[in-house]
Amino acid sequence: MLGSTHGTLTTDSRRARVIACGEQPGPAVHGRPADVDDLDVSGRPLYCDVPDLDRFFRPESVAVIGASDAEGRPNTGVTRQLIAWSERVGARLHPVHPSRPSVFGIPCRPSVADLPEQVDLAVLLVADPLPVVEELAEAKVKFAVVFASGFAETGEEGAAAQDRLTAAVERSGMRLLGPNTNLNAFERFREDLDGPAIALITQSGHQGRPVFALQELGIRLSYWAPTGNEADLETADFISYFAERPEVGAIACYVEGLKDGRSFLLAADRAARRKVPVVAVKVGRTETGARTAASHTGKLTGADAVVDAAMRQYGVIRVDGLDELQDTSALLARSRPPRADGVVVYSISGGTGAHFADLATEAGLTLPELSRAKQAELHQWIPEYLSVANPVDNGGHPVGDWRGRKIIDAILDDPAVGVLICPVTGPFPPLSDRLVQDLVDAAERTDKLVCVVWGSPVGTELAYREVLLGSSRVATFRTVANCITAVRAYLDHHRFVTGYRSPFDEAPRTPSPSFRKAQALIRPGEQLSEHAAKQLLRAYGIRVPREQLVTSAAAAVRAAGLVGYPVVMKASGARIAHKTELGLVKIGLTSASQVRDAYRELTDIARYEDVSLDGVLVCQMVERGVEMVVGAAHDDLFGPTVTVGLGGVLVEVLHDTAVRVPPFGEEQARDMCAELRGRALLDGVRGRPPADLDALVEVVLRVQRMVLELGDDLAELDINPLMVLERGQGAVALDALVVCR
Amino acid sequence: MLGSTHGTLTTDSRRARVIACGEQPGPAVHGRPADVDDLDVSGRPLYCDVPDLDRFFRPESVAVIGASDAEGRPNTGVTRQLIAWSERVGARLHPVHPSRPSVFGIPCRPSVADLPEQVDLAVLLVADPLPVVEELAEAKVKFAVVFASGFAETGEEGAAAQDRLTAAVERSGMRLLGPNTNLNAFERFREDLDGPAIALITQSGHQGRPVFALQELGIRLSYWAPTGNEADLETADFISYFAERPEVGAIACYVEGLKDGRSFLLAADRAARRKVPVVAVKVGRTETGARTAASHTGKLTGADAVVDAAMRQYGVIRVDGLDELQDTSALLARSRPPRADGVVVYSISGGTGAHFADLATEAGLTLPELSRAKQAELHQWIPEYLSVANPVDNGGHPVGDWRGRKIIDAILDDPAVGVLICPVTGPFPPLSDRLVQDLVDAAERTDKLVCVVWGSPVGTELAYREVLLGSSRVATFRTVANCITAVRAYLDHHRFVTGYRSPFDEAPRTPSPSFRKAQALIRPGEQLSEHAAKQLLRAYGIRVPREQLVTSAAAAVRAAGLVGYPVVMKASGARIAHKTELGLVKIGLTSASQVRDAYRELTDIARYEDVSLDGVLVCQMVERGVEMVVGAAHDDLFGPTVTVGLGGVLVEVLHDTAVRVPPFGEEQARDMCAELRGRALLDGVRGRPPADLDALVEVVLRVQRMVLELGDDLAELDINPLMVLERGQGAVALDALVVCR
Repeated sequence: MLGSTHGTLTTDSRRARVIACGEQPGPAVHGRPADVDDLDVSGRPLYCDVPDLDRFFRPESVAVIGASDAEGRPNTGVTRQLIAWSERVGARLHPVHPSRPSVFGIPCRPSVADLPEQVDLAVLLVADPLPVVEELAEAKVKFAVVFASGFAETGEEGAAAQDRLTAAVERSGMRLLGPNTNLNAFERFREDLDGPAIALITQSGHQGRPVFALQELGIRLSYWAPTGNEADLETADFISYFAERPEVGAIACYVEGLKDGRSFLLAADRAARRKVPVVAVKVGRTETGARTAASHTGKLTGADAVVDAAMRQYGVIRVDGLDELQDTSALLARSRPPRADGVVVYSISGGTGAHFADLATEAGLTLPELSRAKQAELHQWIPEYLSVANPVDNGGHPVGDWRGRKIIDAILDDPAVGVLICPVTGPFPPLSDRLVQDLVDAAERTDKLVCVVWGSPVGTELAYREVLLGSSRVATFRTVANCITAVRAYLDHHRFVTGYRSPFDEAPRTPSPSFRKAQALIRPGEQLSEHAAKQLLRAYGIRVPREQLVTSAAAAVRAAGLVGYPVVMKASGARIAHKTELGLVKIGLTSASQVRDAYRELTDIARYEDVSLDGVLVCQMVERGVEMVVGAAHDDLFGPTVTVGLGGVLVEVLHDTAVRVPPFGEEQARDMCAELRGRALLDGVRGRPPADLDALVEVVLRVQRMVLELGDDLAELDINPLMVLERGQGAVALDALVVCR
Repeated sequence: MLGSTHGTLTTDSRRARVIACGEQPGPAVHGRPADVDDLDVSGRPLYCDVPDLDRFFRPESVAVIGASDAEGRPNTGVTRQLIAWSERVGARLHPVHPSRPSVFGIPCRPSVADLPEQVDLAVLLVADPLPVVEELAEAKVKFAVVFASGFAETGEEGAAAQDRLTAAVERSGMRLLGPNTNLNAFERFREDLDGPAIALITQSGHQGRPVFALQELGIRLSYWAPTGNEADLETADFISYFAERPEVGAIACYVEGLKDGRSFLLAADRAARRKVPVVAVKVGRTETGARTAASHTGKLTGADAVVDAAMRQYGVIRVDGLDELQDTSALLARSRPPRADGVVVYSISGGTGAHFADLATEAGLTLPELSRAKQAELHQWIPEYLSVANPVDNGGHPVGDWRGRKIIDAILDDPAVGVLICPVTGPFPPLSDRLVQDLVDAAERTDKLVCVVWGSPVGTELAYREVLLGSSRVATFRTVANCITAVRAYLDHHRFVTGYRSPFDEAPRTPSPSFRKAQALIRPGEQLSEHAAKQLLRAYGIRVPREQLVTSAAAAVRAAGLVGYPVVMKASGARIAHKTELGLVKIGLTSASQVRDAYRELTDIARYEDVSLDGVLVCQMVERGVEMVVGAAHDDLFGPTVTVGLGGVLVEVLHDTAVRVPPFGEEQARDMCAELRGRALLDGVRGRPPADLDALVEVVLRVQRMVLELGDDLAELDINPLMVLERGQGAVALDALVVCR
């Protein structure tokens, strides 16, 4: 029970109580907690190390195991590329081959043991890397890259081979990239480009190619990590490392499957703390995608709704297409934080402005109407009959004089404006040339975001290739949709990181007093009776109806008197499912005789249906409220999850639910409720009073606490329905299903 | 009542009965009906003429009113362009100007009256076109184009001027394009391109520019109609005309507002009959977009959900971005009908295949698993460890020999395969060059659709610009999303036109016998009492509960006896809204004394609330069923609409409704129900029996009939709730709101 008032505890009083119960709050300051071995109460880590990959990306010495210069051998091309790369990064390169005296003129060593120095990085071009990995460990090599395929992606036998590789690496202290990876980390990056860069992480080399090609459009890339099968180093390691690099403006990821959900979230948390945007394509929207991806990477893709929620919890921007990955990560890498959320559309045609405004508004961008004073200012240079409220329609950007610049500067000068977007449908010189030049010039003078959509399908025009792509201050897009997606992500990202508080800092580390009470109720492998399930909820302070478990008709009548008429009576026993369908629930009983009859009927049905009872529950009848569902489940990738949804038939028909991965705070619990399509039911419709949202949020948080503390003991937990009463009246769990593991 | 069985009439028996009532069925064959003045029972046209625009697009003689060759005058550039265009189309051009003896060396006439011949087309470059239009009419000119702006787009005064222009044109028999249009119709089209062409219709010249630029990618355009303010000729006229041109493969439209909903649908119907795809961007997804567009074109945008539904009813493919308009219309223009719906993804990387399959499946495309035999065939050329089930992962397209072609041919040869899509993430010669060439060659040998996604953001690569864009048989895209959108539209379009039956052929032309009964119940300007509203429903064969209207407690008790206990009692009177909230509904009354008390209470409340009653309804209580809503409304653009939705609190909270514009047939009525998110409620959940979907569909069709016949008399019609009973038991309208106009 939540206490005698049946009211809702505020977050503050709740936290105060939790602390009073002897729990340590998380560290108040962001950053690395004091104890790096910190685990939360579920035994999951609250911290992950950042691997020091400096010597991986910038080694002083490199060994190439299996180097070749023999014509026609695949390893020859790879060796050539590694030599060129070593020269660029200033590393000494040592070919290793049992029979070659030299490779491309560089003296070759017969084995790892013969290497002339301790090398930072060994690249393995051999078919069976396992013995070599053991030699490398012996030689204290820091990093190994294994190109060979035929591991987890090929099935069981390969997975076993990969496990042996992992074990060897774990023993050694060396870090390994691969197997089944490629040369992407050793590509030639353009060094003539300035400003913040994109760091790229991919689980498929081909899929990274378009983002890598952004350099040809003048956008800087500084790293590419092709993670392959992730026998050791995984996507999360690279996110953590890149988030700490000062030159990295954004991290772009192509993910087919995650190796470990928790380490991904800890890495995303680190990036969020450092305000570094992470943009990710994650395959697995559909069963087909998940299946195909699994056969490619040998990894679980996780339930997509859970992946989606987990990413949002940590501000990871999920996109679908590689073109969106390009455009969004490029914008986020190179832009400064917004000064305002307002977007102004500047167009040379009313039609273009209307079309853009329509799509932008639908996507959730805010197009503020410019003030009268600002409109008057713009009308100095734009004819009165054109609308400049926003979109600003200039009827054709002035070509011959300074007016175009004045207009753009005046828009950017408005404090309500954070972003100026100019959709250019295509080249129509000289107007478009001048327009583009004026925008590029204006972008140099402002710290606000200036975007151009170059709508021509051709893209060979000078104004596009030289002027727009030549500017690192203007964000250029080829489609309106991608511009809107990226700008939305830009504004969302900065809003998110500004208000970000890491849930790991506040995650419970030790069990609450509830835990001891709850433990006594757990029956391994069994479904609890309704009565026991409700006792479990009560242990965690979740309110249940007044009720008594009785084993005789006379006791039922006495219980009804204590509980108060009208009452509900239900058969109670372990492993009873579909009580309503079986007729094992009687509602609205208003007299002793009805209670007596109901008792007889329920026990008769139970006998007839061969259902074993621990008794009959006589419960307080709770009618007026909104039926919700709060539950917990287990995700293969992320572990325990908490779900809230609309209750009753609706939840089955509409699947109107929201999910979160613990740990999460009150704000996320509120967001879950706000995500529901049917959330208006909670606000009160048709004259009903608003429901007690605070109480619902509190139940969600208490269920989270339960799954964190009891996670490994619970296979299933569902409160259905949770009756959320009128505001101030709390919420009552009318039924609960608990299956122990 | 639907008859003594309370069952559902099948469509056939319904139609048979309608015919028996003296109505004429529509013509059985598609095409132009016998009587071109055909109107449906609502007085709306069932046919629209195709304007003969041959002499507009290919005139023999052209007059340019306000022609100029004076340097620096805007009309000079326009005149120059018109002279060049006239030469290209082989027309004689006559400049008209009051004071110039010649323009660019061509003898100039002082006025329209002095023209040396009857001209086909006059282009008006004058500020005030009205007097000239009158002169042109006098001179029997066939077509006029008015460039001047300052009409409906500028507000009331402009709208009045536009009305005068329209009136003058209507008197003349001449057809007019504009005002507020431009030179787009007289652009230079590439004549070296073969095959089916795109015809383009835009309400904003700038917005058409990207589609026009497709010619630079080798895609043929044959027409561009910039409709401007549509004082006379409108989007629909051009759709009808283009749908009849043999060289037009697809019609691409950019629409801000429609002049007339019905004429648009009749034009779309013509295109659907002729199997010509119409792809349209329609601004107005949001309020902001609608408002901005209105200020640009001076037209209504219509409720967006209605626009969306109306377009789907006639197979118009709605897209959002101009890039989607380009890609989808280009694909539809140039492709042959599919031989199968199956899509196979052919990729050189498992990652690329998985990612594509994920997004394609999510978008509703079908990726059939290839047969074992086909997989064995492919494994002749593709290593065993790569999956070729679909996606077909070739692990790198073979470069050195004929195997690549064999693979592609073998896939295309599969009867389950209608479309082969190869996503190429970017250039990596020589592999990508050979791959692209093999695909282009294979496309020449097959009548199946071959698509390539060229994922490089650069787009200057030779394989893309020369090989892919050089082929008119391979559909090339720059993003996966646009490829999927276009392929989905391609398959949907052909499925739609194959099964297309024009609803205009079957629309009722004369009133049904119900109409006479219903007319007597209409009370202009009033809201009908519940009892009267239900009589109106009964007149159209929609079942209502057994009920009696009574005016005394004693009569109520007698009525309850006849209706059968338990009963529902409701206050009945004109203009009563929110009956439930006022306490004017009593349910579940089981005895004479309860009925007597309820009568007294209802009349007391009515007195207290100052509600005027025509009596109290004593109704049969109908409990078991699915509560739905069926209603009618009036759309500014399309006229009457019919809506179906989930009833009860749900309809308010979730807005789960589907809408259609009459006329529509049974299939569309079924589609409406299938569109509902909560449709599973109708299938029966939690052990409930399936609901009588046929009866629901029948009510939707009968409501359609009502609004067609009574449309102008009805301001509002809502059946809420319609209780849809168990299958075979029908549906009962428990309450209805009817407001007369």
